[in-house]
Amino acid sequence: MPSPHDDVRMRGFRTRVSLEEARKRIVDAVSPLGATDEVPLREALGRILAAGVDAPRPVPAFDRAAMDGWAVEASRTFPATAYDPVVLEVAGESLPAAPFGETLSGARAVRIMTGAPLPAGADAVVPAEFAEEARGFVRIAGAVTPGKHVGRVGEDLAEGDLVLPAGHQLRPQDLGILAAVGLEKVEVAPRPRAAILATGDEIVKAGARLSPFQVYDADTPMLVGLLDRWGGRSGTPSLQPDDAARLRRVLSRAAANAAVDLILVTGGSSVGTEDQVPGLLADLGELVFHGVALRPAGPVGFGVIEGKPIFALPGNPVSCLCAFDLLVGPCIRRLQGMPATEPYRSVRLPLARRLSSVAGRADYARVALTEKGIEPVAVSGASILSTAVRADGWVLVPPGVEGYEAGEVVEVRLY
Amino acid sequence: MPSPHDDVRMRGFRTRVSLEEARKRIVDAVSPLGATDEVPLREALGRILAAGVDAPRPVPAFDRAAMDGWAVEASRTFPATAYDPVVLEVAGESLPAAPFGETLSGARAVRIMTGAPLPAGADAVVPAEFAEEARGFVRIAGAVTPGKHVGRVGEDLAEGDLVLPAGHQLRPQDLGILAAVGLEKVEVAPRPRAAILATGDEIVKAGARLSPFQVYDADTPMLVGLLDRWGGRSGTPSLQPDDAARLRRVLSRAAANAAVDLILVTGGSSVGTEDQVPGLLADLGELVFHGVALRPAGPVGFGVIEGKPIFALPGNPVSCLCAFDLLVGPCIRRLQGMPATEPYRSVRLPLARRLSSVAGRADYARVALTEKGIEPVAVSGASILSTAVRADGWVLVPPGVEGYEAGEVVEVRLY
Repeated sequence: MPSPHDDVRMRGFRTRVSLEEARKRIVDAVSPLGATDEVPLREALGRILAAGVDAPRPVPAFDRAAMDGWAVEASRTFPATAYDPVVLEVAGESLPAAPFGETLSGARAVRIMTGAPLPAGADAVVPAEFAEEARGFVRIAGAVTPGKHVGRVGEDLAEGDLVLPAGHQLRPQDLGILAAVGLEKVEVAPRPRAAILATGDEIVKAGARLSPFQVYDADTPMLVGLLDRWGGRSGTPSLQPDDAARLRRVLSRAAANAAVDLILVTGGSSVGTEDQVPGLLADLGELVFHGVALRPAGPVGFGVIEGKPIFALPGNPVSCLCAFDLLVGPCIRRLQGMPATEPYRSVRLPLARRLSSVAGRADYARVALTEKGIEPVAVSGASILSTAVRADGWVLVPPGVEGYEAGEVVEVRLY
Repeated sequence: MPSPHDDVRMRGFRTRVSLEEARKRIVDAVSPLGATDEVPLREALGRILAAGVDAPRPVPAFDRAAMDGWAVEASRTFPATAYDPVVLEVAGESLPAAPFGETLSGARAVRIMTGAPLPAGADAVVPAEFAEEARGFVRIAGAVTPGKHVGRVGEDLAEGDLVLPAGHQLRPQDLGILAAVGLEKVEVAPRPRAAILATGDEIVKAGARLSPFQVYDADTPMLVGLLDRWGGRSGTPSLQPDDAARLRRVLSRAAANAAVDLILVTGGSSVGTEDQVPGLLADLGELVFHGVALRPAGPVGFGVIEGKPIFALPGNPVSCLCAFDLLVGPCIRRLQGMPATEPYRSVRLPLARRLSSVAGRADYARVALTEKGIEPVAVSGASILSTAVRADGWVLVPPGVEGYEAGEVVEVRLY
């Protein structure tokens, strides 16, 4: 690896690593935290399964009615119609917790409720809509075929079936199916804890009084949200002035804190005279890269202090967002023991307009979904946060591509 | 309105309202809760803005450098190239919190950092990459045009611009832009609180020992997750046996509880002999509808007790999911004072295979996104939860449509 210090002067980035190389170095430098969390299902929404789950029992565990009606031997209902009904004797009832105990035979039917066990001898259910019971007999106005309105053992899940794979992010219906196989708790990936530091003499907390030339800190509320979306969490962010000695102390303390799994520093990541974070990183630990061929997050840096990953993120909020989505997020996945995939759903859709990009750098292009297709949002103004707010997602344009034409199908990651 | 009791017999649903009519009746019967929550930005992820937010100040509030480099009057850099550089005297420095105080004039430049105020007299920034400073002079190896690498006042947001509209669900970058305009708190829609009751003698809590013909409760963990996804929340769900007197007491108590905004009852919603919920609803309050022309949630009922919305949801988990997404969710939005829109992102994509449906009923068809397009998941087996687990989203097929052909573009709501 070339000495990372070559870059750290007000001379621009002499060398920038590719996005691919940056990601590879992150994965190589970071080890999974190891531990997993066991959480009750009702707290598991959005968590990531640490291990695949196999069905310990079939669902359903017995043949059951899929509708309210009468359980029958299907052949007994031929050729019933509304004008020429079949009449069967009602032999009894099957309720979900009180099955019909005998075997059904002859011209008989069993009144049955949805979810109730299908009696032995029956092979179909005539829905309530097509029958009417009176004085111990049911008039069936429509024939059913064998298996009709019956939920078979294991039809939903056979014993041993994979219910959900490792790495799956849990949605409401996933919690339902995990409960259906009897699980009350589930083993999920840990939520890596980040310390967030925003640096810059000009940065002021939202809500405070603003002096001329000061700006509100937009990065840390966004980072708190991004961590949450990617499966991490954070303590209270702290704002730090451009004071190298102080920043060195704060960084060392965070790296030594057992409750911190990664550190995110915003601002001071570039090549300006006040951009001290990469230098500090190199002094306190190892600077793994500084500068990525990526727009708009070129000045991002990454290193390791006492085994903990540390990102020097650009202070500009869009650059910070881009660096998070493409580099910090994969690091969080890695800490969770997961492949460094993105939590964004991706769709392939045609472009409504040309999407321009500059060759030689990867481009994080914000796009909106419209009736006409994918619309690039403000291709100029890479640093404008409202572009990310107006956007529904982003397209990663690889370094070797100068853009895509209108009508080309591109992969969009949806926010 | 016809007497809802006409339907409540083991004779099937004589009349079913359309999905559209059911939704209209819900909106008519339910009033917004009124109150809004004020929450700090760091707790606002996923919350819904109660009111639109206008920018109280422009972003940026001053012209600033978009890159590290040298602030110049652009015309002074013509026609600089790497072989024929322009040399300017360095008049000083502009840092983000320490601007250059004078007006730039003559053949001079000001060293400037990203985000720092652009000095008066300068109109562009030469990036660090294209210049080198030595002994008080900077050699500029590339010309810039006026405005280059400058972020103009209000370029991101002008004062008074709509930052985000009412009803917007807050993402990380939205928290960033709200902080950028100086907000530390935000007014969001309330989270309606639901009481969840699962009924059925056969229902057992996940994790408990199962007797033959008992089944695990899959609905309540799913409902807890669905409430969260739709912006509501819930207390601890309770499981109730099929005991009408007891259920009547529990329902009355929940309706009288000031901490409950809506009630969800699963099971006992159909026309079986044990399906007592719609009848109880009619006795204790008003049954607004029972039975919707909707697959697979036909038996769903809805009513109001003491002004509180109550849903009788089918016990089958897929039907329960369908009823939630199409009916309960819009009710939650209504309670929040929002239009009854869905929280699902929707995309329009072509079908990879024919999607069959039955005319006369709306159909909640689960689909997967694949390389080839939209794949229907298990068109038979409406009641199978693993179809919803394998699905990435759903297509609502209207009652008048018998399905869509392969290649047709359909609207998919993504889970």
